[in-house]
Amino acid sequence: MNTLKVGICGLGTVGSGTVNVLQRNAATISARAGVNIEIVHVGARRDNPLCDITPYKVSRDIFEVVRDPNVDLVIELIGGTTIAKDLVTEAINNGKHVVTANKALIALYGNDLLALAAEKGVTVAFEAAVAGGIPIIKAVREGVAANEIKWLAGIINGTGNFILTEMREKGRDFADVLAEAQALGYAEADPTFDVEGIDAAHKLVILASLAFGMPFRFEKCFTEGISNIDALDVKFAEELGYRIKHLGIARRCENGIELRVHPTLIPEKRLIANVNGVMNAVLVNGDASGPTLYYGAGAGADATASAVIADVVDIARGNQIPMMGFAPEEVSKQRILPIEEVQTAFYLRISAEDKPGVLSEIATALSARGISIEAIIQKEAQDDEVRVPIIILTNRTVESKMIDAVSTIEQFDFVQRPVVRVRVESLAG
Amino acid sequence: MNTLKVGICGLGTVGSGTVNVLQRNAATISARAGVNIEIVHVGARRDNPLCDITPYKVSRDIFEVVRDPNVDLVIELIGGTTIAKDLVTEAINNGKHVVTANKALIALYGNDLLALAAEKGVTVAFEAAVAGGIPIIKAVREGVAANEIKWLAGIINGTGNFILTEMREKGRDFADVLAEAQALGYAEADPTFDVEGIDAAHKLVILASLAFGMPFRFEKCFTEGISNIDALDVKFAEELGYRIKHLGIARRCENGIELRVHPTLIPEKRLIANVNGVMNAVLVNGDASGPTLYYGAGAGADATASAVIADVVDIARGNQIPMMGFAPEEVSKQRILPIEEVQTAFYLRISAEDKPGVLSEIATALSARGISIEAIIQKEAQDDEVRVPIIILTNRTVESKMIDAVSTIEQFDFVQRPVVRVRVESLAG
Repeated sequence: MNTLKVGICGLGTVGSGTVNVLQRNAATISARAGVNIEIVHVGARRDNPLCDITPYKVSRDIFEVVRDPNVDLVIELIGGTTIAKDLVTEAINNGKHVVTANKALIALYGNDLLALAAEKGVTVAFEAAVAGGIPIIKAVREGVAANEIKWLAGIINGTGNFILTEMREKGRDFADVLAEAQALGYAEADPTFDVEGIDAAHKLVILASLAFGMPFRFEKCFTEGISNIDALDVKFAEELGYRIKHLGIARRCENGIELRVHPTLIPEKRLIANVNGVMNAVLVNGDASGPTLYYGAGAGADATASAVIADVVDIARGNQIPMMGFAPEEVSKQRILPIEEVQTAFYLRISAEDKPGVLSEIATALSARGISIEAIIQKEAQDDEVRVPIIILTNRTVESKMIDAVSTIEQFDFVQRPVVRVRVESLAG
Repeated sequence: MNTLKVGICGLGTVGSGTVNVLQRNAATISARAGVNIEIVHVGARRDNPLCDITPYKVSRDIFEVVRDPNVDLVIELIGGTTIAKDLVTEAINNGKHVVTANKALIALYGNDLLALAAEKGVTVAFEAAVAGGIPIIKAVREGVAANEIKWLAGIINGTGNFILTEMREKGRDFADVLAEAQALGYAEADPTFDVEGIDAAHKLVILASLAFGMPFRFEKCFTEGISNIDALDVKFAEELGYRIKHLGIARRCENGIELRVHPTLIPEKRLIANVNGVMNAVLVNGDASGPTLYYGAGAGADATASAVIADVVDIARGNQIPMMGFAPEEVSKQRILPIEEVQTAFYLRISAEDKPGVLSEIATALSARGISIEAIIQKEAQDDEVRVPIIILTNRTVESKMIDAVSTIEQFDFVQRPVVRVRVESLAG
C-alpha cells in the first residue's frame, strides 16, 4: 500500500483531535483510503497534553513542516489569517496539498490560494471550515452536482444557536445566556465573531461560492447579529408558530445572489427549526433534489477532525474534485444583492400607546408601500406601561420598502421606541 | 472540454427525470463536471411523453445501448433483477461504467457485479439506490471516512413513513391509510415490498456494507413490516414521548453486526422522529463525527435523477472512490447477529383482565429474565371490555429473553390476546 505523508500545523483543539482520530482509526482510515495515511511531522509552539505526538518529528517553528520534503500534505489548524496565509502559500509553493479548517482564511483569501494551488497542481480542501463534522462541502460540491441550487440556508454557528435555544426553552435573556455560554466554553471571551454573525458569514460565503460557482467575496455578505433579539420576540415568534434562528442564507434571484446572515423567523414545523443547542444544520434546495438537509456537530475536536480527515482521504484516493465545485474557468463573479433589494417577509414589534386609531395608522403606513399584513397580535398593556406591543407578520416585500415604512411608523407620536424588525423565511421547497 | 457519452436504459419515472434534468441543467452540470455529459443513446420499449428523446438514437432493445461502442457510461433504470443483471453484466464486460438506481440489483447481486467491474477497470455507482435525492452513499463512503461507524438508522421507505405519519397525525388505521397511499400513487398495488420492509432491507444492506466494509448479504437482514402496527400503539407511544418509525438499523456490536428493519419507538425529541410524510432521513453515528443526519426526498423522478447524475458527474470527474467505500481487499465478511441476539428496549401492550395481581405477575415474568421496567401505563377498561391494555416500556435486553418472557406472559389465564411487542431505540449519540 502506498503512503501519504502528512504534516500537521497547530495542536489546539482541532489539531489534537486530528492526531487522536488518525491514531485511533488508522486501520479503518487506510482501509477506506486504499493508502496508508501517516503523520510524519507536527508543528506546534507547544505540546498538547490531549494527544501524543512523541512518535513524530516535532518542530516549534511550524514553517519547518511546510518546508519538509518528506511531507506530501499539510493540515493547517493554526487559525487566524496572517500567519496561516503565509504558511498555506508556502506549502502550496512547495508542491504540497493543503487541508484546512480555517473558514476566515478561505473566505478572505481563498480565491488567491486556490488559484495558486491550481497553478501548482495541488489541492486545497476545506470541508472542516464549514459546519464541523457535517460533510456539507462535499454535499454541495458533489452530492447535488446535478442541480441548479435555488437557495441554501444554514444554522452554521453553534454558539448562536445555543443562545437562541436557551432563550426559547427557558425564557432567558440574551446577555444572561451569553454569560453562561462563555462559562461553558461555547462562546469566546470576545463573542463578536459568533454573535454578530461574522463566523457564520465566513462559512456562508464559502457555501454560496460552491453552490453558485462564484469567487469568495466576504465583503459582500450582509451580516446582522443576534444581540438585539429580545426574549419577548422569541416568545411572540413562538405564539405565531415560528422559531428564531440565526441563519446564513444564499439565494439565486433574478437580479443576482442574496448573501446574508441575520436572525430569521422560520416555521416551527420545518425540520431545521428543531435543530437545537450547539448543533448545526444546512438546508440545500436544488431544482431536482428538492430540499435536502445536513445535520450534525458544528464544532468540537473529534467532529472537526472527522471533516479534516475526510479531505485527507479524498486526496489520498486521488480524487479530482474541482476545489470550487465548478471547473476553474466556469467560476465567475455574480452580482450580490444589496440588502435593500432582498425580499423577505417581516416580523415587526411596535411599542405603541394603547389608544384608538393606532392599528389603522400602522396598517396604512404598510399598505401605502404595498406591504400586506399576514397576521397581527395586539397584546394587553404590561403592568407599568401605557404602551402595548403590537406584533405584525407581513407578506414578502423588498427590504427598502420596509425600511421606509418603519421610518414612517417610528415618526408617529404614539410610537416612542424603535420598531423591532426581524426577517421571516418560509424555507418551503 | 471532453465529452462523456451516456446511454440510458429504461424510460420510466426515473429515466424520464434523468433525461429532463440532464437537458435542463446541461450547462451547470458540465461546468461542475469539467466534462460535457451527453446522452447519445436511449433504450426503452416505448417513449415516455414526460420527456423528449427525439435528439438521441433510440433502441427498443435496451441491450443495443450496452453494445453501442459510442457509449462510455450506461445508466440502468429498468428495475427488476433478472434482465437488469444481464444488462449491467454486459455493460461492464463491454468496458462501460454503470450508474444504477436499482437497490434490489445491488443488494442481491452487487458483490459479483462490483467484482466484475473492478476486474474490467470500470465503476458501478448506485447513489440513487438508497434514499433518492439524499447523497447518503457519498456521505457514508466519503464524508465520514475518518470514522469507525458505530451505527446508522434510517427512514428509507417513503411509503411506510407516509402511512405511519398519517396514522399518528390523524389517528387513522393502517389499512385505511394504505388504501389512500395506493390511490395517491405512493404505494404499489402490491404493497409488500414497501410495508413489509423488503425495499428498506435492500437499502439498509447497501448502507451497512459501505459503513462496515463487508459484502452485501441481503439474506442476513432481519425484516419486520408495519402492517401489524395498530393505531392504539401509535397513540400510546406518543403518550410515552415516542414516535413509531419504520427504521433500518445497522450497528456494530462486540459479537458482530446488527442488520434489521422493523417498526421502532424513538424519542420524539430526536430530529429523525420529526421526519414526516414521504420524506427519508438517515442518521449516521461515527466515533469522531458524532451523530450526523441526512434528510430529503426518498423518491420521485427529479430527486432520484439528482442522485443518478451526481454519480455520472463523479465518474466524469475521474474520481477514484472505492465502490464499497473500502479498498476491495479490505472488504470482508462479518458475522451478522441473528435477531435473538440483538439488544433493544421494548414496548409491550398486553391485553389483560382487570383484576388484582395481574401487574405483579407480569412484572415477575419480566424480572425473572433480568428485564427491568422503565415505565408502565395501565389504561381504563374500554366500554365493552373486561380487558385493559397494560403498556410497558422495558430497559434494554437481549431479544431471546424477551421472546421467552412474552411466551410466559401469553400463557397467563388473564391474558387472552397475543402481546404486542415493538422494539425501542434511544438513538442517542
